[in-house]
Amino acid sequence: MSADDGRFTGGFHAVEAAIAQGRVQRLFVAEARGDGRLKRLLERARSAGLQAEKRPRAELDQLASGRHQGVVAELSADAVNVEFQDEGALEACLDECQRSGRAPLLLVLEGVTDPRNLGACLRSADGAGVDAVVVPRSRTAPLNAAARNVASGAAEALPVVAVANLARTLDWLGQRGVRLVGLAGEGDGTLWDEDLAGPVALLLGSEDKGLRRLAREACDALVSVPMRGTVESLNVSVTAGIALYEVVRQRVSN
Amino acid sequence: MSADDGRFTGGFHAVEAAIAQGRVQRLFVAEARGDGRLKRLLERARSAGLQAEKRPRAELDQLASGRHQGVVAELSADAVNVEFQDEGALEACLDECQRSGRAPLLLVLEGVTDPRNLGACLRSADGAGVDAVVVPRSRTAPLNAAARNVASGAAEALPVVAVANLARTLDWLGQRGVRLVGLAGEGDGTLWDEDLAGPVALLLGSEDKGLRRLAREACDALVSVPMRGTVESLNVSVTAGIALYEVVRQRVSN
Repeated sequence: MSADDGRFTGGFHAVEAAIAQGRVQRLFVAEARGDGRLKRLLERARSAGLQAEKRPRAELDQLASGRHQGVVAELSADAVNVEFQDEGALEACLDECQRSGRAPLLLVLEGVTDPRNLGACLRSADGAGVDAVVVPRSRTAPLNAAARNVASGAAEALPVVAVANLARTLDWLGQRGVRLVGLAGEGDGTLWDEDLAGPVALLLGSEDKGLRRLAREACDALVSVPMRGTVESLNVSVTAGIALYEVVRQRVSN
Repeated sequence: MSADDGRFTGGFHAVEAAIAQGRVQRLFVAEARGDGRLKRLLERARSAGLQAEKRPRAELDQLASGRHQGVVAELSADAVNVEFQDEGALEACLDECQRSGRAPLLLVLEGVTDPRNLGACLRSADGAGVDAVVVPRSRTAPLNAAARNVASGAAEALPVVAVANLARTLDWLGQRGVRLVGLAGEGDGTLWDEDLAGPVALLLGSEDKGLRRLAREACDALVSVPMRGTVESLNVSVTAGIALYEVVRQRVSN
């Protein structure tokens, strides 16, 4: 049993999500824990037919990479790999939005290469009710155990679509009436100047360099989240959260 | 030389901030790097009187914990520890806001115990132009190397005030006319229902349990960031970013 083969996931959020999704084969908890949150987790586990096994904390450290808070789940063999979906899933998602009369909300991560940042973006996206996340197949972090742990269940819940040709996909989204709004330090205006109530895809670039020229040029608008202090930029998952929730705010207010 | 004594910091954001703040004693770069971003960093370093030293990437891995992107700085001895400030700094900060006719914006982290989460919250807070961050002295993550790296320079730029008695400080803030708004899953309304244009302190609780009863009861209002998907909550630094930038938005629109 090793930490990074993706068979184990740790931490309350990720383990609770995995239990809810029926993906847990065995559940391990630290010998020392006994608080309310663990009690609630154990109740959910029992309802799902799982019996927790007590283990020394040092053993859990071996199983789950990162911060596991004393709870670690071994995932069922068929639930270990979260696969990217293909372009068909994106089309199905837009069709579904159209059928239900809902304006789609998409997040395009044009070059997030750190798995933990990818996972963090998925968590923000799921919170805001994003319909699908789009990544370029050749320039993305993998949906590995680190990404899934940080995503706290969002990696399994959200369609994450890897596309072969991002320029073509952006063009196709435009044809389907989706407004492409890129987040960039040197935006034409701020995020708040933009009407985001209709069908919209928010584009974010890489952690280091932001949006590449190709993606930038495909956008209908470039907007910024103003920086008021000394740091140069926000973490990409924070920018995603701020921009996605501005969409939620505008749609609620409309 | 070891990774976690706080003498080394890695990654472009953190190293650039440390150079700008005059805190760097020596600068190391990976032998293999040679792109535009590095060139700009080296120019800044030269302007600050620093000559970069090339090192094998494996050696940099030993120096800096976490993702260093091939750039690592050794900090001056007097810049290794970032200390929490005391209550006096908070009073000075409110006085300064009053003098300049500016509505103060404060962030109270009532129980963030993971250093990386603390650092991430500081980065979000600095981005939004927060005047000071308040933490309870007995229940906070340390401002160690991990926190500082994730904060990307914000730990040094922002006053982070550790208070002995949080209840007393919250009471005092109320007397100074600061509205206390707590973020809680079961808020009375959403974030967007709240008037945040005046003097305001946003309160966030711990990663696991949210705001404790004491802090909750001290609040003038409890508001939520609605969850639209399957994850139970957002990362605390993302919630901080969303809530703080809603304050920025309201103040810009006013």
